[in-house]
Amino acid sequence: MTAAKSADRLHSQIAFAKEIDKEKTIERRTLLSDASRFENDAEHAWHAALMAIVLSEYANEDIDLFKTVTMLLIHDIVEIDAGDTYAYDEQGQASHFEREQKAANRLFGLLPADQKQFFLSLWQEFEERKTPEAKFARCLDNFQPTMLNDATGGEMWKRNGIKLSQVLQRNEPSALGSKALWDYSLEHFIRPHVGEELKNE
Amino acid sequence: MTAAKSADRLHSQIAFAKEIDKEKTIERRTLLSDASRFENDAEHAWHAALMAIVLSEYANEDIDLFKTVTMLLIHDIVEIDAGDTYAYDEQGQASHFEREQKAANRLFGLLPADQKQFFLSLWQEFEERKTPEAKFARCLDNFQPTMLNDATGGEMWKRNGIKLSQVLQRNEPSALGSKALWDYSLEHFIRPHVGEELKNE
Repeated sequence: MTAAKSADRLHSQIAFAKEIDKEKTIERRTLLSDASRFENDAEHAWHAALMAIVLSEYANEDIDLFKTVTMLLIHDIVEIDAGDTYAYDEQGQASHFEREQKAANRLFGLLPADQKQFFLSLWQEFEERKTPEAKFARCLDNFQPTMLNDATGGEMWKRNGIKLSQVLQRNEPSALGSKALWDYSLEHFIRPHVGEELKNE
Repeated sequence: MTAAKSADRLHSQIAFAKEIDKEKTIERRTLLSDASRFENDAEHAWHAALMAIVLSEYANEDIDLFKTVTMLLIHDIVEIDAGDTYAYDEQGQASHFEREQKAANRLFGLLPADQKQFFLSLWQEFEERKTPEAKFARCLDNFQPTMLNDATGGEMWKRNGIKLSQVLQRNEPSALGSKALWDYSLEHFIRPHVGEELKNE
């Protein structure tokens, strides 16, 4: 690589590094455990990635843990352009896919071509939830906010009138990544807050 | 492992996962690139870890990248108890070591013994800056806030009257991790904001 090409490469990488700073301003619908404010996407990505390392022994299948962690670190970058869609906003979820594809192309497109391809593929793999790594990463992506919601006494589910059936529909695929973590979250993080409905449904 | 022991293990891991949520409330002395507010430790850890992946080709030595990323994800957890010490606060830096050791023992001590040992060793390795991974991780730990400071026009260095000599003393060891990133930051992030002094020192 010539010196000029090499300088261009580093310049692109730094442009990406600067742009993703915006992920810290994308607010989620999850409160911090002290309920003081909403969490943002960067904080969520950090927390879920580190929890994947601590909890990796509970993955259903053998996983490449570094790949899982990298997926979690990048999984919400698209929201810089596409915004956060609340897990229980059905209308938002419908237009979500197209907006995120466009966002992924622009944001990962700031990087040199080889890295654009690498991160774009990894993000698509996460979205498709087919590989063991994607299944475990998606499990953590759900487990982490469910844990925080429990820490606040289920506050956000109360505010939004979320029902057990909605939580199950959204979160049950977590079991594909880790049966043990799904069972734990159902018992400790979900049922205590929407359990009463169980008898009526 | 018996069922009871196994439940205890997961319970300890979840206790740790819950406790580290507090890292999101530890404010740093770095502004976000839009200067809207201070960054917190969790956001910084996410950003530095992801930048380590994007910029790994510039490490001086061969590194285990996953180890570097894990170091960066955990490196500021101790600040939950010990607080953030501003890089240019010399008095704070002096008592820093003892406070952080105690914090590391308590926080990583929430985990099962094997994981406590793993993370405690990794954090100590980061602090000692001797291995190739620690040198590169420490390089990113400095490079990321220097990049953000540049994005705000050097605002925090102005506010705190930071001099080039202080920046060099603090940041020059970054070159041990990556000569290329150190050279880039000196030219693009540091000299534009404290360069005038260069002639007087």
